[in-house]
Amino acid sequence: MSLLKRYSGNPVISPRDVRPSLEGYVVQGAFNPGAVDLGTETVLLLRVAEGCEQKPGKVRAPMCRLGAVGACPAILEVDADDPDLKLKDTRGVWYRGRDYLSTMSHIRIARSPDGYDFRVDPSPFIFAGNESEIYGVEDARAVNIENRWYLTYTAVSPDSWATALAITEDFQSIRRLGLIFHPENKDVAIFPERVGGKFMALHRPNNSGFGRASIWFAESPDLLHWGNHRCILRPRDTRWECMKIGGGAPPIKTPEGWLIIYHAKGEDSLYSLWGALLDLEEPWKVVRRGREPLLYPEEPYEVEGFFGNVVFSNGVIERNGRLRVYYGAADQYTCVAEASISDIIGSL
Amino acid sequence: MSLLKRYSGNPVISPRDVRPSLEGYVVQGAFNPGAVDLGTETVLLLRVAEGCEQKPGKVRAPMCRLGAVGACPAILEVDADDPDLKLKDTRGVWYRGRDYLSTMSHIRIARSPDGYDFRVDPSPFIFAGNESEIYGVEDARAVNIENRWYLTYTAVSPDSWATALAITEDFQSIRRLGLIFHPENKDVAIFPERVGGKFMALHRPNNSGFGRASIWFAESPDLLHWGNHRCILRPRDTRWECMKIGGGAPPIKTPEGWLIIYHAKGEDSLYSLWGALLDLEEPWKVVRRGREPLLYPEEPYEVEGFFGNVVFSNGVIERNGRLRVYYGAADQYTCVAEASISDIIGSL
Repeated sequence: MSLLKRYSGNPVISPRDVRPSLEGYVVQGAFNPGAVDLGTETVLLLRVAEGCEQKPGKVRAPMCRLGAVGACPAILEVDADDPDLKLKDTRGVWYRGRDYLSTMSHIRIARSPDGYDFRVDPSPFIFAGNESEIYGVEDARAVNIENRWYLTYTAVSPDSWATALAITEDFQSIRRLGLIFHPENKDVAIFPERVGGKFMALHRPNNSGFGRASIWFAESPDLLHWGNHRCILRPRDTRWECMKIGGGAPPIKTPEGWLIIYHAKGEDSLYSLWGALLDLEEPWKVVRRGREPLLYPEEPYEVEGFFGNVVFSNGVIERNGRLRVYYGAADQYTCVAEASISDIIGSL
Repeated sequence: MSLLKRYSGNPVISPRDVRPSLEGYVVQGAFNPGAVDLGTETVLLLRVAEGCEQKPGKVRAPMCRLGAVGACPAILEVDADDPDLKLKDTRGVWYRGRDYLSTMSHIRIARSPDGYDFRVDPSPFIFAGNESEIYGVEDARAVNIENRWYLTYTAVSPDSWATALAITEDFQSIRRLGLIFHPENKDVAIFPERVGGKFMALHRPNNSGFGRASIWFAESPDLLHWGNHRCILRPRDTRWECMKIGGGAPPIKTPEGWLIIYHAKGEDSLYSLWGALLDLEEPWKVVRRGREPLLYPEEPYEVEGFFGNVVFSNGVIERNGRLRVYYGAADQYTCVAEASISDIIGSL
C-alpha cells in the first residue's frame, strides 16, 4: 500500500480538458506538471502532448515553423505513398532528410482555487521558441528563488534534448535564459535557496555506456552557468530502480534535510516514486533513502494510457506540513496524491 | 593528398618509449597528446593506455585503488574459471558486481627541445585521483589563459565519462577544479582568451537519440561554471563525417577568425582531421569550413594499430605562421604533421 494517498477525484486533468493549440491537432496527454502555490491559486505547468488528426491516404505530423519571432505550430502533410517519406517506429516519420515526431509537447497552464478543480488555459504558455526547441518543450519545473520564479524545462530539437532555463513574472510570458545543461540532460531541479552562498541543482545526464542514468549534483554562481558536477544518487539493483532514476520537483527544505521525491524506472519499464533526504548544508550527501516506493502504478489511469505503468512527478506543493504531489500518470493524465512530510521522512 | 605534411620521422612516440606505471602493466598506446609550447621545450600530454601482462589460468585487468590521498594503480587478478567472473567484449570484464576495463589510461608528459625528438617522463602526470576518474583519465588539452595553464581531460568512471578541469603551474603537479561538463561529454577545447568578457569553450555532448554527436559552444564567467550551450557545427552527410564530429585543440586566433582543427568519424569508423574558421567576436558563428580533410589515415602507423584508421588531434602548436599538429594514430602512436596557417585557411 502506497504511503502517498491518491485524491479520490483523480485524474484531476485529462486530455479532453485541454483545447488543442492548432486546428487539426489532437491532445494525447496532459501530464507531468510543474506545480506552483500562489496562495489563492494553485498553478500547474502541464506538459501537453499533441498529435495530428489523420486523413485517409495522408500522413500528418505536428511540426514547428521557426519565424522571425519564435515558432508557431503547423502540420506536415504528405501523401502516404510519397517516395520521400519513411515511417519509423510509432514515435515519428522521416521526410526529405528530416525527422518529425508523431507527438510534440508544449507547456500549458492550469489554474485551481483549491488544488483539485482545474481550469486549463486555452493556449500554450511555453511553445517552441527557438532552434533548440524545434521538437517541443517538456516537463517544466518551477521554483521561487529570491522572490523570482524560475522555470526549467526539457528543450527537444534535432540536435538532441537538453535543459533550458527561463524566468516568469506573471505565468503568462517568459524570458528565456539559455540552455543551462547540455545534451543529454533532463530532470533538472533547482534548490529554492542558496546553500553556502551558491545556487544548487539536481540533474540527470543520460548514460548510454557503462553505468546507469543517475541523479547528479551541480553548483552555480548565477543560475546561468553550472559546474562541479557530482554523481550523488545511483539506481539500486532492485526491480523498482534497476533501469534508471531521476530527480523530481525542487527539493523541499525540512529541519531534517532537503526532501526530494524522485522517480525510478525498473523492470518492464515501470515507473515509481521514491523519497530521499539530502544533508541541509552539504546537499550532495544523501542522508536517508526510502526502501519502499511512495507511489507505484495501481489505478487504471496509471496502469493504462499513452504509456502505461508510469507515475512521474515534477511538481510538489508544501502546505501545513503536508505535501501535495502532483504527478503524471501513464504519460496521459494529471493526478495528485498527498502525505504528511513527517510520515514521508519517517518512512525513509 | 593531405594538406597537412607528415614529419618523416613519424611516429615520434610509440608505446615502447613509455615505461609502464606499474610492474605487470603493458603500455598499449601513447597517443592523443595535448601540446604546449614552452619556448625552449615542447611538452606533450600523452594519453598512455595500459593493459596487464596475462598469466596462464588467470584473467588480469588494470584497476585503481582509491585511497586517502587519491588513487594508485593496481591489478585485478582472478582465476579464469571463477564463477563470479564474466568476460565481456574485448573492452573489459565483470567481476562481483563491478566492471573492469581491459585497458586504463593516464596522462604522461613527454618533452622535446625541437618538437620531434621526445623523452617520456618515467611516471604519470595525471593519474586517476578521485571517484570520477576511477576508470582513468584520457585525452588532455592544455591552454594558457591570462598566464595560467589550464588542462581539460576526460574523466572516466563507473558513473560514465565527463570533462574535468585542472590547473598546473609547472607540468609536474595539478590542482583539480572539478567536472566542468557533465556526462556524456568530451573533446572540450577552451579558448585561450576571453571574448566579449566571457570565457568560451567548444564541447562535444554525446548523442544517443535523434541527431548525431556535434560540436557545441558554451560560455563561462570563471572557467568553473558553464552555460548558454549552443550546437554550432554538425556532421555533414558525407563518408567522412556521417557518424560524428568533435573539437580538437584550443582554437588558434588568426586575423580571419578562430581556426579549429576538428576530427570527424565517418564510414567504417574512419577518423580524419578537418579545418573550420569561427567568427572572431562571435565564435559561435561558423565562417568557413573545409570541403576536404586536412589529414586522413594513409600511413601504416595510422591504418594499423590498436584501433586502426584513426587520426585524432587535441594538441596544436603555432610557431612563425605555421601549425604543428600533433595527433594520435591508430589509438597507439603519437605523430606530427605541419602546414602554414595561411594554406589551411586558404583551403577552407
